[in-house]
Amino acid sequence: MAVSYARRVEMLRASEVREILKITQQPDIISFAGGLPAPELFPTVELQQASADVLMKAGSQALQYSTTEGYEPLRQQIAVRISEKFAAPLAAEDILITSGSQQAIDFTGKLLLDEGDVVLCENPTYLAAISAFRSYLPQFIAVPTDDEGMIPAALADILATTKRVKLIYVIPDFQNPTGRTWSLARRQALMELASRYEIPVLEDNPYGELRFEGDMLPSLRAFDPKGLVIMTGTFSKIFCPGLRIGWLAAGRSMREKLVYIKQAADLHTSSFNQMALSEYIARYDFAENIEKIIAVYRRRRNAMVAALETHFPAEVSFTRPQGGLFLWVTLPATLDATTLLKECLTEKVAFVPGASFYPNGGIQHTLRLNYSNMPEEKITEGIIRMGRVLKEVL
Amino acid sequence: MAVSYARRVEMLRASEVREILKITQQPDIISFAGGLPAPELFPTVELQQASADVLMKAGSQALQYSTTEGYEPLRQQIAVRISEKFAAPLAAEDILITSGSQQAIDFTGKLLLDEGDVVLCENPTYLAAISAFRSYLPQFIAVPTDDEGMIPAALADILATTKRVKLIYVIPDFQNPTGRTWSLARRQALMELASRYEIPVLEDNPYGELRFEGDMLPSLRAFDPKGLVIMTGTFSKIFCPGLRIGWLAAGRSMREKLVYIKQAADLHTSSFNQMALSEYIARYDFAENIEKIIAVYRRRRNAMVAALETHFPAEVSFTRPQGGLFLWVTLPATLDATTLLKECLTEKVAFVPGASFYPNGGIQHTLRLNYSNMPEEKITEGIIRMGRVLKEVL
Repeated sequence: MAVSYARRVEMLRASEVREILKITQQPDIISFAGGLPAPELFPTVELQQASADVLMKAGSQALQYSTTEGYEPLRQQIAVRISEKFAAPLAAEDILITSGSQQAIDFTGKLLLDEGDVVLCENPTYLAAISAFRSYLPQFIAVPTDDEGMIPAALADILATTKRVKLIYVIPDFQNPTGRTWSLARRQALMELASRYEIPVLEDNPYGELRFEGDMLPSLRAFDPKGLVIMTGTFSKIFCPGLRIGWLAAGRSMREKLVYIKQAADLHTSSFNQMALSEYIARYDFAENIEKIIAVYRRRRNAMVAALETHFPAEVSFTRPQGGLFLWVTLPATLDATTLLKECLTEKVAFVPGASFYPNGGIQHTLRLNYSNMPEEKITEGIIRMGRVLKEVL
Repeated sequence: MAVSYARRVEMLRASEVREILKITQQPDIISFAGGLPAPELFPTVELQQASADVLMKAGSQALQYSTTEGYEPLRQQIAVRISEKFAAPLAAEDILITSGSQQAIDFTGKLLLDEGDVVLCENPTYLAAISAFRSYLPQFIAVPTDDEGMIPAALADILATTKRVKLIYVIPDFQNPTGRTWSLARRQALMELASRYEIPVLEDNPYGELRFEGDMLPSLRAFDPKGLVIMTGTFSKIFCPGLRIGWLAAGRSMREKLVYIKQAADLHTSSFNQMALSEYIARYDFAENIEKIIAVYRRRRNAMVAALETHFPAEVSFTRPQGGLFLWVTLPATLDATTLLKECLTEKVAFVPGASFYPNGGIQHTLRLNYSNMPEEKITEGIIRMGRVLKEVL
């Protein structure tokens, strides 16, 4: 039986990260693949209390259908927190609750992209965003990017010469996969160009609150007089992923259409989970919980950077992120990261080769390391093993 | 600022049901609109225990990322239950957990539909399925349908003469909106034709377990040697909607692609909710809970049918469903149901006009009544008021 699939199905493939995660679930592997938060920091007991109370006080509401936009008190709590942290003026009504920020990315593609339309993104960029957008059959143009973000002259040139640019997708804070953070000047330059050409910008901010040092930088919404920015965030990295609660914020016209898209896609995000999270935020010290996560991840970042400096050959370079979950390694151009992965797996260490983070491919000598999900001694041990393999291979 | 949206956005509109629900949330309205289950039957206390235990015993797993396919024990529980109830041989590996069955409908559209492809459906059919499919810009052909299901000769004729039929969408048990159930012979006839033309069939079965009388009929999967059926179900009507847990079952090739689609769309459904539901099923008597729901809805259906027989004018006909949540009213062809709704709202009664359940429109004199969410005395009172308005108008 040969079912005739939609053409977009040709673009589908399993996420390389998730397939590798399956291989690396054996407990004896030191895995720098994946992007899992540290489960020992999940506030399990408090959430148990919050969710029990929600069911006791308002079980009928928590277990019933609810509005597509999301639970009003939670939208309010998000608006207050994000406005304060990212200088991004937000009201509750700007917020649509999504099932993780992955869903916000998918919906933005659904909102904006016809076949052949152009998405501009950083190079490299988040691979599951590439997967989500691919469902809508766009072309990707990877904008030349350095340690401070997209290079404005390159972006200006692309915008001046390219038809059908429908979306600019960026992760300004502690980018996945590189760990880089955009400078203030680059944020402003991006928004000047986006405003001039009136191109919507999806600002994906899953890690921004996990800053280990330095000052918070404003959201792109701080430079957005025309209301072009769709901002998305998630509770997956600052609370826990298992509830699947993310959000997007957008101006009225785009947001109304995104609400219709969500209504047709899954009606609404779990009322129970939204109410339990809201109860948790109302009752416990959310900031303190984030401080705990930051303290642990900072130590792990430090351990990884120290080990890389000590144990990696000098020809290998890497980023030193100020926050988030990942850092990015650049090998000598002759070395293929997928070949290296195979060697490292025999030493029981895993990571994600960089190739799938480039929307148009072509670069084989980079890789992503995650440091959030592994204690420091294992991080050191894993980097020692990788360094040994590297020295053999080079 | 004029954002250039994707063309599919022109097809988006708010669900009429949900917009009416907003109007009818005042407590003094007797609402037969919507499709809400009875919240007084939600097993709130038991779920509180189950979810607390999951967090206590396995909090790190429940709050962490998990596999796209879903929580293995829950997939197993679904496979066992559905195999038994619907003579639909299912294994755990056939199941993909979705965020409600609405998401399974959306994903099926994403899997199969290119612009201009044809979806065959009942006439009328579930309006949120129409909305979900519309995102992929298909054409709909409404197959002539009577009380026993699609009329085989009509379906055969359409299949013989129509190019690009990619999907047949049906709700064989207690259909939304009509409450009708397909006969065994019609199920077999549909699958003979689907097999001959090798067209995938989406069998949407949210209500099948809520049968008030008569024997359960087999799923279309019982007549599916070629593996063409994607079956979808949900816990929204037999447990509660607020957890947003549904599922689909499909043969390997389609299922693998649906897993990739879900991975790109929202990674996975809440691990916490899946584990809490699974714990509930393992620990409590799920069948007994369904029996309770059936007993209550049967009384409400009886109350509504009795009131319709007594208080509606003879020119108005209606279905007598053997299960599910809805019945379907056909007015004299001169009467417009939307006009009637406006009159009824002044009497504080609400329902959903039938027009939006016809994918290609054109019929104004039908309406849907929901009986699951209202006590019997209110059902009777609401039908008395509607009957009064009808007699005035006719």
